This record gives sequence, structure tokens and C-alpha cells, in this order.
Amino acid sequence: MATLLVALDLLGTFVFALSGALVGVRHRLDLFGVLVLAFAAATAGGILRDLVIGAVPPPAIADPRYLVVPAIAGFVTFFWHPVVTRLQASVLVLDGAGLALFAVSGAFKALEFGLGPVAAVLLGGLTGIGGGMVRDVLVSEVPTVFRAELYAVAALAGASVVVIGDLTGLPAPAVAVGGALVCFGLRMIGVRRGWRLPTPRP
Amino acid sequence: MATLLVALDLLGTFVFALSGALVGVRHRLDLFGVLVLAFAAATAGGILRDLVIGAVPPPAIADPRYLVVPAIAGFVTFFWHPVVTRLQASVLVLDGAGLALFAVSGAFKALEFGLGPVAAVLLGGLTGIGGGMVRDVLVSEVPTVFRAELYAVAALAGASVVVIGDLTGLPAPAVAVGGALVCFGLRMIGVRRGWRLPTPRP
Amino acid sequence: MATLLVALDLLGTFVFALSGALVGVRHRLDLFGVLVLAFAAATAGGILRDLVIGAVPPPAIADPRYLVVPAIAGFVTFFWHPVVTRLQASVLVLDGAGLALFAVSGAFKALEFGLGPVAAVLLGGLTGIGGGMVRDVLVSEVPTVFRAELYAVAALAGASVVVIGDLTGLPAPAVAVGGALVCFGLRMIGVRRGWRLPTPRP
Repeated sequence: MATLLVALDLLGTFVFALSGALVGVRHRLDLFGVLVLAFAAATAGGILRDLVIGAVPPPAIADPRYLVVPAIAGFVTFFWHPVVTRLQASVLVLDGAGLALFAVSGAFKALEFGLGPVAAVLLGGLTGIGGGMVRDVLVSEVPTVFRAELYAVAALAGASVVVIGDLTGLPAPAVAVGGALVCFGLRMIGVRRGWRLPTPRP
Repeated sequence: MATLLVALDLLGTFVFALSGALVGVRHRLDLFGVLVLAFAAATAGGILRDLVIGAVPPPAIADPRYLVVPAIAGFVTFFWHPVVTRLQASVLVLDGAGLALFAVSGAFKALEFGLGPVAAVLLGGLTGIGGGMVRDVLVSEVPTVFRAELYAVAALAGASVVVIGDLTGLPAPAVAVGGALVCFGLRMIGVRRGWRLPTPRP
Repeated sequence: MATLLVALDLLGTFVFALSGALVGVRHRLDLFGVLVLAFAAATAGGILRDLVIGAVPPPAIADPRYLVVPAIAGFVTFFWHPVVTRLQASVLVLDGAGLALFAVSGAFKALEFGLGPVAAVLLGGLTGIGGGMVRDVLVSEVPTVFRAELYAVAALAGASVVVIGDLTGLPAPAVAVGGALVCFGLRMIGVRRGWRLPTPRP
């Protein structure tokens, strides 16, 4: 079970790293810049959460797997970015899966470190979207999550399921699967139908 | 007394959140983006200070009031931003008050955690201006505080009053009021007269 | 010996602060903005490392010398930036020396706090390049380190020498000098010959 969770987490890391590396390629960064963006997109959300809850050093820094996996994604994207771009529809699905995994695991970790329900939802959301925000800030763009189709909402909804499930004493595996499905489902519906949050009237 | 302090702190949080939400509206972010900017502008300065002094989890994350208050400011601004914009002169005064409160409370908290006088002034200033800096970076703008009328200077002056007062053993309430008045006064004079720090010769 | 190390570290701080202040001058920030960029460029790498390894409060905040030295560099650049610009070739050499010092000291500090070899290389690199990254993000530019001549590579190489030397039990002073020379040498060769990392094919 623990092995499965780690495998899922590393898969989420890989997919988020692809998104970071693609942004780096599009901005014509050099190989190092592409690798940094892969690493930042994949790990910044979790690192920010860990700093806030005092879980230092964050596993994303201390565990070499969280360096190796983004590096592989970065190299793959650097050399075969036309292929990665062509697979973007599949990447979008995987990215939704990564979002779900990160939101759920982020909420669980916050609860584990004694934070309250509201804070755990917030930190689950941050774990899901923080990497993409840092990725975009590093190339001087307004984070796409501020305008994307039900992206942050999906992450917060998934984290809320985890927190509510935990409060009601449901078994953790069921809660995790439920939270991940809610997040992934909302995100996929958002992409399919182009659902977005409202923007302010001019 | 403690209740009054919390009320003042939440008022400062509300006003800073308005400034963040207005920037989000101006950049045509969606509702979530506007809420994030409200939250970031209101809490990032305090969160950065808390990370640096090791006060984790920061109250801005752990205490739901610091999520609810920016959320209210964000929704208000999202739906009635023409009104908020029209009230901007009053918002500017309230923002000066928020700056004063944050600079003073930031300096006190740093002293409380054992930091030296220079560091406490620095962290008081950071508490006051950090939120605005993060707000601007998130929409890819150069922080206005790098060019504003006596904004950072006012925060640092207020924090200095706190530190000097603390060193000389004056009673904390008097020091707090004095520091806040110096910060608020300097900021208001700066706005009225358009006083700015010099810029480099070309 | 310890005094020499501190002196070298403060020299690196000074040189990095010059680079930050010059960027501030070029963006026509006011005096405070120039000072913030000087401080950020000089200390953000070390502060990020310290937050990640749990070394709070970071010396860059707690020790006033790390505030005074960037402030001096900021004032000097603010008033005499034509001179600093004219000396840029020498500044580039000093900046390479600062990079070497920071990469080496960052790797040592990470090892000292119990991080593994891969993490120590990563954090040595972050210590060297983090300040420049934050400097550039604060003025809404894509960090130059994502496109510069063997800058990050040099920092990572220097940090790797430290980690490998430490693993093999070589005496720390020799390892430090070796790591610094590798970093400095690579950076200087990169600048001289215009060596860059590859960028992605279009």
C-alpha cells in the first residue's frame, strides 16, 4: 500500500514536471532552466506546504527521487518536446490525476501535523496548485491557475472531501480515493466543457 | 486589550485584502485568482516573517479568521469593485493604518522570538510590505513599494520606534501607539505631498 | 581561519548586492527598491537554504552585518552607478568568486544539518543562484541564470566537489578550496568563451 502511494506520488511529480519543462521550452530557456522549471512545477507546492507546517527538510529536497524524477521529465521534454506537445491531451488527463493526488496527500499531511480542518483544505489546495504558480512566476507570467478551468476549485474540493471524511471518521483509503475522484472528476468536466469561474464585470 | 489587538489586526488584514483583490480585478483574474490575491496581500508579509523566525504553522494559515476575512474582502471587491475603487481615497487611509498595525505587530513578534533590534526592524518592515510585494509579483508587476510615496520608509520607521521603545523599557502599549502613529503619519504625509524617495540619476 | 571565512562570505555578499542594486537602478526603482534588490540578491539564496534545512532564524536576518553590507553596496551603486557599471568586468570576476563561495558554503551547511549528498549539492547550487533568481523575479524578469554562461552548472559542480570530498573524508579546507576553484574556473571559462548550455530546438 505504502509502495503504491509513493508510486502514485512520483507519477504526479513526473506529470507536473512535464508541464514545467514545457513552459521552460516555450520560453527558450537553456537546459538548466528547463530542469529548474520541471523541478519547481513538480515540488514547489509540497515544499511550501512543508515549510508552513514545519516539516523540514521537505522530502522533495531530502529524498533524491524527487530530484531524479523531475530531471528525467525535464530531459525528455528538452529533447522530444514536439512529442510531449503532441501528447498534451493525455498530459492534461495525467495532470488532472497529479492534481488530485497532490491535493489529497497535501490535506492528509496537514491533518497529520495537527492543523485544523480549514487550514488542511487550504494546504491541500496549495500542494496541488503551488507548483504551477511558482513555475509561472519564474517565467514572469500570471499563474494560469488564476484563469484556468476549475483547477483550483477541483483541488480545494478534493482536499475538502479528505478533511470532511477524516472528521467523520471514515477509513483513510476510502476518503483518499473519494477526494481524488472528486478533484479529478471536477477538473476533467471543467476541461471538457470549458467551465470557468466567473471573472469580474468590467 | 487582547481582543482590541486582534480586532485591529483583522481590520488591517481586511484592508490589505481589498488592495489585493482590486489588483486581481484589474488584471481580469477569475474569482479564485481575486481571492488568492486578497489572501496573499493580507497575509504573505506575516507568513514570511513567521517562516523566518520559526513560528510555524503561521497563524495566518492555522487560524481560519485569517482566511475568512480576506475571503469576504475578495468577494466584496469581486462583485462591487466600482464601489471599492470609488472609495479608494478612504482605502488609502485604511491601508496606511493597516501598514502601521502590521509594522508594529511584526516588530513586536520578532522581539518576542528573540531576534535582535536590527532584525526586528527589518521584520517589522517585511510584515508591513511583504504582502504587497507578493501580490504584485503574482501578477508579474514590479512591486509598487519600490516606487511608492514613503511606504516602506514609514513601515521601517514605525518598527524602529517599537524596537527603540522596547530597548529603553517603555511600556508596550505606549510604544505600540507611538510606532503606529509614526508609521501612519509618515505615510499620510507622503501621500498628501507626493513625497517619494529619490530615484537614481540616469 | 573562521574570521577569514566570514570575511570571504561578506565579500561575496557585497558583490552579489552590487549586482542586485545595478538591476534596481536599471529599472529606475527608488532608493528603497535599490536597497531591497541589493539585499535580496545577496541573501535570498542563503535564506531559502536555511528555511529548507530548518536553520531559523537565518543568519542573513539575525546578523546585522548581512544587512549593513548589502546596504553599503546599495548606496554605493545608487549614487555612483556609472562607476559600478564601468567596473562591470571586474564585478563579473568578483561575482564568480561570490558564486564559488556561496555554493561551497551552502553545500557544507547542508551536510552539517544532516542532509544527504544529492540534497547538499542541490542546496549548494540554490545558495549560489537563489539570490539572483529572486532579484530577477522582483523586477518581473525571467532569471538570467536560466540562460547564462555556465552559471548554475558551475555552482552545482563546486557543490559536488564539496560533497564528494566530504564523502571521501578529505580535509575540509582542501575540499572547500577545490570546490571553489572548480566553480570559479568553470564560470570564468564560460564567460570568456561564451559557453552556454544548449537551448531546445525550435
